[in-house]
Amino acid sequence: MKRVKCTVSYDGSRFAGYQVQPGQRTVQQEIEKALATLHKGRHVKTAASGRTDAGVHAMGQVIHFDTDLSIPETSWPAALNSLLPGDISVSKAAYADPAFHARYSVKEKEYRYRIYFSHVRSPFKHRYALRVWYSLDIEAMEAAAETVLGTHDFTSFCSAKTEVEDKIRTLKEIRFLQQDDELVICFKGNGFLYNMVRILTGTLLEIGSGKRDPGEMREILEKRNRIYAGKTAAPEGLYLWKVSY
Amino acid sequence: MKRVKCTVSYDGSRFAGYQVQPGQRTVQQEIEKALATLHKGRHVKTAASGRTDAGVHAMGQVIHFDTDLSIPETSWPAALNSLLPGDISVSKAAYADPAFHARYSVKEKEYRYRIYFSHVRSPFKHRYALRVWYSLDIEAMEAAAETVLGTHDFTSFCSAKTEVEDKIRTLKEIRFLQQDDELVICFKGNGFLYNMVRILTGTLLEIGSGKRDPGEMREILEKRNRIYAGKTAAPEGLYLWKVSY
Repeated sequence: MKRVKCTVSYDGSRFAGYQVQPGQRTVQQEIEKALATLHKGRHVKTAASGRTDAGVHAMGQVIHFDTDLSIPETSWPAALNSLLPGDISVSKAAYADPAFHARYSVKEKEYRYRIYFSHVRSPFKHRYALRVWYSLDIEAMEAAAETVLGTHDFTSFCSAKTEVEDKIRTLKEIRFLQQDDELVICFKGNGFLYNMVRILTGTLLEIGSGKRDPGEMREILEKRNRIYAGKTAAPEGLYLWKVSY
Repeated sequence: MKRVKCTVSYDGSRFAGYQVQPGQRTVQQEIEKALATLHKGRHVKTAASGRTDAGVHAMGQVIHFDTDLSIPETSWPAALNSLLPGDISVSKAAYADPAFHARYSVKEKEYRYRIYFSHVRSPFKHRYALRVWYSLDIEAMEAAAETVLGTHDFTSFCSAKTEVEDKIRTLKEIRFLQQDDELVICFKGNGFLYNMVRILTGTLLEIGSGKRDPGEMREILEKRNRIYAGKTAAPEGLYLWKVSY
């Protein structure tokens, strides 16, 4: 048996999320269907770096699975892509150490949140970015972001539904990229709680629009209570950008 | 009654084309549904500059309709967009002369065909551009394009199923835009026959890949027979870009 590590990108707009759900179209289900075909109908279990919600995209999701097929490393992407639907693509594959685990070996994750400015909805962006029709004070957003960097209990910035006990995470970087009529917010950390990037983004947007003061960001963090943070930003702007091991 | 001229953009990937077809989701049907809601259930007939096929996109489709509502010109886009699905958007509206007709008054149309170069399919582009994994000789394509500009019988470059009698059209410009890993071919003319841009593109791609000589483009034109031209390029790369009156 050999362990295969794959980098996968997908357009999340037609999926009910990453994880298998009976009766729903999910990314994991499509990948496992393709793997079963390659393995003569046998089910091949996969593990991913983490789930993504319905509508959330991935540029660099990482998964692993074990196989007894002797396919050269570089042929795995083409073999899988020929069986996968057009909205999923395997961009890289490599044989990995048996101790490698797509979820437990993660060192760092990067998420990006894409926002576009327009008075009119763009049919080409509406599933791929959040539309904002008001101007944003990026400097205020940067100042607010700065105050939550580091290792903290991020209870305030995660879904109240989270079942994870340990809410301490290290947020290493929040970067703002402006290009043309778009703003991309890049988040790097050792791990993210459920809805954390979307709640951080929603709160930063309320600061950028002047609804809240930049100083509130730190206050919200210290409350350790989800009700103080801003709205959860819509899923369509979110991309799981890169997973590092 | 007042005539309203609207500029409409749409992501064609989830539509069975522009024109109403029973039991299918089409752009015209969605627009007429929104108009009926605004007009208290009354059906409002629309006319467009032309149809687009399933999977074909539009940046600047133009339509017109007549109304007895007294909505200010500038409020039409917001009124319609609030009722339209996210993959259609009205970007502009203006009251027009009663003699204006979205189809019969057309002076010039621009279509664009988008191609991307990659060895691996991009899940984010596969419904919005044609993937090409080989390199293209753009100079050869430009030389070939040059030979079909002007007023000609374009029978060779239109679907054999076309019912239109008059196959004479004026092709004013074919321009090649290269940016990053993409090539966009822009076609301007006084009108285009059914599948004309896709067959021109398919033939130009065969020239660019070295399968055919640039000189063949003119020979194909002169044959006036569809069987001599190249394959019809896939719909997902095609955009109705602009309609001028």
